[in-house]
Amino acid sequence: LKTIPLRLGLRSYDIIVGYGITPGLGRFLKRLKLGSDAYIITNTSLKARFGPSVANSLKKSGRNVRFKVVPDTEESKSMAVASLVINDLASYDRLKRVFIIALGGGVIGDLAGFVASVYKRGIPYIQVPTSLLAQIDSAIGGKTGVDLEKGKNLVGAFYQPRLVFADVKLLKSLSRRQVSAGLAEAIKYAVIKDKQLFSFLEKNLSGLLALNPKPLEFVVARCASLKAAIVSKDEREARGIRTVLNFGHTLGHAIEAAGRFKAYNHGEAVGLGMLAAMEISVALGLTDEGALRRVEALIQRAGLPVRIKGVSPSRIVACHYHDKKFVGKRNLFVLSCGIGKTKIVKSLPLEVILRAVRKRIQSPTL
Amino acid sequence: LKTIPLRLGLRSYDIIVGYGITPGLGRFLKRLKLGSDAYIITNTSLKARFGPSVANSLKKSGRNVRFKVVPDTEESKSMAVASLVINDLASYDRLKRVFIIALGGGVIGDLAGFVASVYKRGIPYIQVPTSLLAQIDSAIGGKTGVDLEKGKNLVGAFYQPRLVFADVKLLKSLSRRQVSAGLAEAIKYAVIKDKQLFSFLEKNLSGLLALNPKPLEFVVARCASLKAAIVSKDEREARGIRTVLNFGHTLGHAIEAAGRFKAYNHGEAVGLGMLAAMEISVALGLTDEGALRRVEALIQRAGLPVRIKGVSPSRIVACHYHDKKFVGKRNLFVLSCGIGKTKIVKSLPLEVILRAVRKRIQSPTL
Repeated sequence: LKTIPLRLGLRSYDIIVGYGITPGLGRFLKRLKLGSDAYIITNTSLKARFGPSVANSLKKSGRNVRFKVVPDTEESKSMAVASLVINDLASYDRLKRVFIIALGGGVIGDLAGFVASVYKRGIPYIQVPTSLLAQIDSAIGGKTGVDLEKGKNLVGAFYQPRLVFADVKLLKSLSRRQVSAGLAEAIKYAVIKDKQLFSFLEKNLSGLLALNPKPLEFVVARCASLKAAIVSKDEREARGIRTVLNFGHTLGHAIEAAGRFKAYNHGEAVGLGMLAAMEISVALGLTDEGALRRVEALIQRAGLPVRIKGVSPSRIVACHYHDKKFVGKRNLFVLSCGIGKTKIVKSLPLEVILRAVRKRIQSPTL
Repeated sequence: LKTIPLRLGLRSYDIIVGYGITPGLGRFLKRLKLGSDAYIITNTSLKARFGPSVANSLKKSGRNVRFKVVPDTEESKSMAVASLVINDLASYDRLKRVFIIALGGGVIGDLAGFVASVYKRGIPYIQVPTSLLAQIDSAIGGKTGVDLEKGKNLVGAFYQPRLVFADVKLLKSLSRRQVSAGLAEAIKYAVIKDKQLFSFLEKNLSGLLALNPKPLEFVVARCASLKAAIVSKDEREARGIRTVLNFGHTLGHAIEAAGRFKAYNHGEAVGLGMLAAMEISVALGLTDEGALRRVEALIQRAGLPVRIKGVSPSRIVACHYHDKKFVGKRNLFVLSCGIGKTKIVKSLPLEVILRAVRKRIQSPTL
């Protein structure tokens, strides 16, 4: 069991990473001076699988428990579902003693965090991430939000949880595809910040795909530490430090959107986005072909696509142009200067981007 | 023209109070480094009345302007309207240069502030309050929110504006009843914090009701200063300092709710709530009958009810029990220790509250 502190003054909190630690959740909450009533936001299958052990642990530490089940789809990240949840929460919460537990992946974490941020102008919440992607990335750092017709995460807040509780044993519920998607974010951390982690991933990839506890716990804790360090220096992405986390995401989001969020899941799109960013980095002479090939090999071994299929380069560039990260008329790219190092480049010409994207397109003859 | 600074570190801002200052709004915004695109949330009648002069001032200082009209009812403070507004805002905002102007009273200010707080995890907004109540109170301090079926302001955030711009000339659009409602909040500030202001109100009440610029500007600026001082010491109502602002509101909200938000408007209910709080204060020996009579006389001269009609005391107490300010099982009352002084009392027995409420009920024979 590892405890990683995320330091943010009065909003500081711990990230707990371990294997089979769920029965101890109630004990960890004791230090936090929360209310007596836990409101657990989750979905049907997660409730069936983990609900009893989470609820038992909470009840043993003297809490009341209520579950709120939301659909297991991206549609749960909407104002409509948020409204339903908040009304239900209000009927449960009579005496201002309620706190929220997000038991789920990125969708549930983002929704629950948003609900916690706006209900009565903010109540405490705990992240209990059940996907690798959430344990490594989305449960940490306080970015919460729901989607609008006009775009993803257009509504939200920066609102930090009081605890992130990552039991890697929960990851056994994941499909292989979901594990691969999570590994994409782990690879991202390695490429932007941690050469040693990159080597570790290369050596332990099959163990990770098999969900072996030791390497899994190591990787989740390492990524959590890297994210915690970045967030504590730049909570609101205002100083350009948190920006490095967007490596692979700028074009990744565009690839996701261009595929209408069906062709690729987030992790897969980020993998492709990282490769496109590597292509740009090579084209600009920031890093060499060798680094690109190493990243490509690792992404491929993680079970992720390395070539874009069925989406046109021009559509990707058009989606990129409408991304909310596109500040003013200038784009902003996190590029690689070799594994473990990054450079932020502004106002990249669209031709450069287009050329890089074209290089990642599956050629018809392959 | 008066400039009142509200000091909150990086979130500090100015409150500008003056008469006929709207044509200068664009100039004031220049210092704030806002984007080029103003998104003005207002209602149809306010747009017709003040829209042209606000828009002209902004255009002269080189901004683009888009109006968004919402219904002139409390229903605009809903998740449904917030969603509609945010989707519309997203279609206007392409290049992350948009900021919001709330041109209206409390409903529009609360809605616009909430939208600003959650859109893309927070964009800047400006309060241009058009009601006396908003100029004196609700536009200042960053409490934003929308209502749910289960209760008012259940969804919201603490999110500070970048400027509060109070042109008392705009108050000419108000009905007499709306002016009276605003005066209730002014009386509240005087009772809790400022004996001199109380005397000023006693001397200048007819001038205020006639909307004479001089006393109006004085009172708005004075109340704004008092609120600014309180908010800068306790932004999130976490230290018990901001709590004094709830004087008259604890039972006021209950009276509003007991009357199903139709019998009394907010200011009227606060007036009655203050009188009930004064009754409790007298009953507990914190202040004397004389202070109660002075407050009662002033409230009456302001055109506000001083007796509760058509709502039963037991229903008021029941509504009070369900108020979101009711922490744990203990209530929290701001009581008066004579004009200008307060005391916060916890866990008041319900009989004491009931007796005070009964004293303010209109007796059938009167």
